[in-house]
Amino acid sequence: MSYRAKVPKPTVKRLSLYLRELEHRVEQKQPTISSRQLGDALGLTDAQVRKDLAYFGQFGHPGIGYDVTNLVDRLRKILGTDRTWNTALIGAGNLGRALMAYGGWQQRGFDIVAVFDQNPDLVGQWLENHRIRPMSDLAMLVKERDIRLAMIAVPADRAQEVADRLIAAGVRGILNFAPRRLDVHQAVSISSVDLALSLEQLAFQVSLGLLGSLDEDDD
Amino acid sequence: MSYRAKVPKPTVKRLSLYLRELEHRVEQKQPTISSRQLGDALGLTDAQVRKDLAYFGQFGHPGIGYDVTNLVDRLRKILGTDRTWNTALIGAGNLGRALMAYGGWQQRGFDIVAVFDQNPDLVGQWLENHRIRPMSDLAMLVKERDIRLAMIAVPADRAQEVADRLIAAGVRGILNFAPRRLDVHQAVSISSVDLALSLEQLAFQVSLGLLGSLDEDDD
Repeated sequence: MSYRAKVPKPTVKRLSLYLRELEHRVEQKQPTISSRQLGDALGLTDAQVRKDLAYFGQFGHPGIGYDVTNLVDRLRKILGTDRTWNTALIGAGNLGRALMAYGGWQQRGFDIVAVFDQNPDLVGQWLENHRIRPMSDLAMLVKERDIRLAMIAVPADRAQEVADRLIAAGVRGILNFAPRRLDVHQAVSISSVDLALSLEQLAFQVSLGLLGSLDEDDD
Repeated sequence: MSYRAKVPKPTVKRLSLYLRELEHRVEQKQPTISSRQLGDALGLTDAQVRKDLAYFGQFGHPGIGYDVTNLVDRLRKILGTDRTWNTALIGAGNLGRALMAYGGWQQRGFDIVAVFDQNPDLVGQWLENHRIRPMSDLAMLVKERDIRLAMIAVPADRAQEVADRLIAAGVRGILNFAPRRLDVHQAVSISSVDLALSLEQLAFQVSLGLLGSLDEDDD
């Protein structure tokens, strides 16, 4: 099932927010939710909520809204959160260690099943419950452990090479933490976490006198 | 100068991209750039570029475009990148260490001038060229070192308390790495880096069959 070229990227980004809010409402045993309620909770207009959910064929009933449990089930299925994603971590330095210690991966459906590093001093050591593997084991383990996603936590000058090896090994999605834009030729899905960019945007907020959170999109 | 309530958040997020691309063009000694060229480089429509820059009173000349050097100067001034932002790091664990080692802060205008941790075993130790300070020194050092921004890299259950202390100490902007939504009552500017959310959005991309980068907004 492909929604390619149909679902805009900002909508993809908002889906996490919808899902989290709806799961919260399921816990509270709320049976239905209107687009306005959902929008109010997330700082979005009700029109934006309706438009986003319509991409997935989800339409609320006028005067009633959406069936919360049904909407959660449908979104989970569409978004693949009803399965576990086997994930690799590349780079066992401070950032890699921070990512391992971060917690919450499992509960969000991610299982870090292998950790790699090119440094021979680190290979063979244990990081949490993983023995750090050499990069030469990458292709084999991606296949053997059905690894779909990978997080790149290596220095910037090695990131492209690591991405190329991940793609060759058959990984489907790459989350890049290195401060370097990667060229992946539309071969995989990719997303970057640019830590300095986040701080820069925060500084802009301060400069522009914008208070509160930048996290909720209001477009 | 306040642009509050005028500049939409997605525009704020795009300003970093504009600035980076324009600085690149200055290096290449390109005198002018059209909204279409700028948009093409960033995966945005020319209409979006014109709309974003118009918030800052920047208008291109029909058939000529924007004066690159002038536009860079104006954006830098508006966005505060012509100054250095004294920044504090709260939390000297793996994530804090990764952030210190990340590099590139200085060149983007950020000077990490103090590192704090509540763990007495860490206080007094050195992290890069900083002696780790106890949280009890926070208020004094924020004032003494003119600290405007802070990065929170502590466990989730301590993040709100740390944010409250930062606000009380007079910090203007907070970048939160803890997986916890912070309540700051519009007292400061705040932005969060939710590492698990980034991986989740990547998984959605893969599920939806969307290839390429999620990083460029196409709204």
